[in-house]
Amino acid sequence: MENAFHKWLAKNLPPSDDAIVGVGDDAAVLNWAARNDCVVTSDMLAEGVHFVLNDAGPARVGRKSLAVNLSDLAAMGARPVAAVVSLMLPTGRATGLAEDLISGMLPLAKELSVAIVGGDTNTWSGDLVISVTAFGTRGENGGFTRSGATPGDAVLVTGQLGGSRLSHHLDFTPRVSTALRLEELAVVHAAMDLSDGLSLDAARMAEQSGCGIEIAASSVPISAAARDMSRAGSGKTPLEHALGDGEDFELLIAVPTGSAARLAADKDLELTQIGKCVTESGLWLVQENGSREALIPTGYEHE
Amino acid sequence: MENAFHKWLAKNLPPSDDAIVGVGDDAAVLNWAARNDCVVTSDMLAEGVHFVLNDAGPARVGRKSLAVNLSDLAAMGARPVAAVVSLMLPTGRATGLAEDLISGMLPLAKELSVAIVGGDTNTWSGDLVISVTAFGTRGENGGFTRSGATPGDAVLVTGQLGGSRLSHHLDFTPRVSTALRLEELAVVHAAMDLSDGLSLDAARMAEQSGCGIEIAASSVPISAAARDMSRAGSGKTPLEHALGDGEDFELLIAVPTGSAARLAADKDLELTQIGKCVTESGLWLVQENGSREALIPTGYEHE
Repeated sequence: MENAFHKWLAKNLPPSDDAIVGVGDDAAVLNWAARNDCVVTSDMLAEGVHFVLNDAGPARVGRKSLAVNLSDLAAMGARPVAAVVSLMLPTGRATGLAEDLISGMLPLAKELSVAIVGGDTNTWSGDLVISVTAFGTRGENGGFTRSGATPGDAVLVTGQLGGSRLSHHLDFTPRVSTALRLEELAVVHAAMDLSDGLSLDAARMAEQSGCGIEIAASSVPISAAARDMSRAGSGKTPLEHALGDGEDFELLIAVPTGSAARLAADKDLELTQIGKCVTESGLWLVQENGSREALIPTGYEHE
Repeated sequence: MENAFHKWLAKNLPPSDDAIVGVGDDAAVLNWAARNDCVVTSDMLAEGVHFVLNDAGPARVGRKSLAVNLSDLAAMGARPVAAVVSLMLPTGRATGLAEDLISGMLPLAKELSVAIVGGDTNTWSGDLVISVTAFGTRGENGGFTRSGATPGDAVLVTGQLGGSRLSHHLDFTPRVSTALRLEELAVVHAAMDLSDGLSLDAARMAEQSGCGIEIAASSVPISAAARDMSRAGSGKTPLEHALGDGEDFELLIAVPTGSAARLAADKDLELTQIGKCVTESGLWLVQENGSREALIPTGYEHE
């Protein structure tokens, strides 16, 4: 199938100024002459683990496999440039599936100016595996890491949290434009994307930054999906969904406290302050009455 | 396992000047300030397709998954810089396996100055899948592509061909240093690595260059393994092995005819002239008596 798929790619991938050499050679060559340092991220998704192919359909699966990588670039404050896509395809449905997966990526790739420049295709007797590696150029102000949060910083998130598996995890828009505006506008001490649940990811930011994080229970923006799941008898409160459900793919940031109100007031950024960084290590949940308890992370731990 | 594996990585990956941000953040940041354009290649290997894990052992499998990518960078005349490694690991043997795979990559990574800077690890009920994406910096003279061969060019290969599956496919050294010397020393009109068999790969170079290639039957360097397989009753001649066996991971190059003798005389390059580019399209095998026949590619066609 590789030959036919290469011909399909040659017809269907839009031309890109970023690719000096694109699909069809031993490697791609990306024009990096006028670019800042190279930011690289890679995510691998597998059938039955990250998606149910028959439920989601290949186009949404393809889109998700690109989107999760772009979310990682956003977390670094990087501008996306290109991606390569490697596929392990189940024998028998390989050609159509490969085309459908890439077709699902193309609108998002176009929207965020990402050139698909290469990859690898294989077939086997196992289930579908997709590996996407995405490249971006580091923000002019140095971009973000997750390790620079400082006691006193305000902690904010984009969007609403929880209930992602009702559909958001397949259809989310990676926060690339928000990240690029933040990189330009604000001093961001730390940033990461929420892939494994707010409590688990915030605990990681705190640990890697060498501080603690207090989350104000009443400030966490809870999605309609989280409320729906709770109401439908999930056995969890809406807040528990917002703290523990994975795959929100929103941004978590720590900024100097003085800039928090200005950023939260900017409607385009969709930011909500949910807490602050503290000296004492660990993750803490603060109730409206001021009582504080250790928050045990409940997100998705990779096995 | 992800947490334990990250700790293992932090201990076992050598520090790198090339990684401004390495393993442990949402993405890696590679120092690209003083570098040429970014060359990117990605290969995905699966258990039962590209290797038999129990026969080869995880260290050799890990090494191979990095080496095939470095071979692609060599084919472009690019200097390797870094790689990311994504793993889909069988549940139950995940942690030890991930460590053994990376351990198998480290000596080669060190030898060729490749920093392992990130990736993704997951577990599932399926077999092992490894995806490596490698980055290099484009050669100062523009590097190579496979599409620039010109009628009259001499066609050369490195090393000896055929019989790779006796063991070479697991233990080969990607031709990075040869490629870098060639990029510096010679005008190279076209280059590619031999992954699917000389006849199939040469046919691709000819097609993408818009010319034909004549191979002199008596000039093809045949490996001892190809002779052994033939003698052991493979049903193929040694030449048929050299023309059709895949995974040689040698370089195939086309250069102006005037430089061929000089390059072939340089022992360090291990180059042999095997033929020339011609105006008439297609692939041709020329016997010592001068008779010429169309050579039907017999290499490995990806399904």
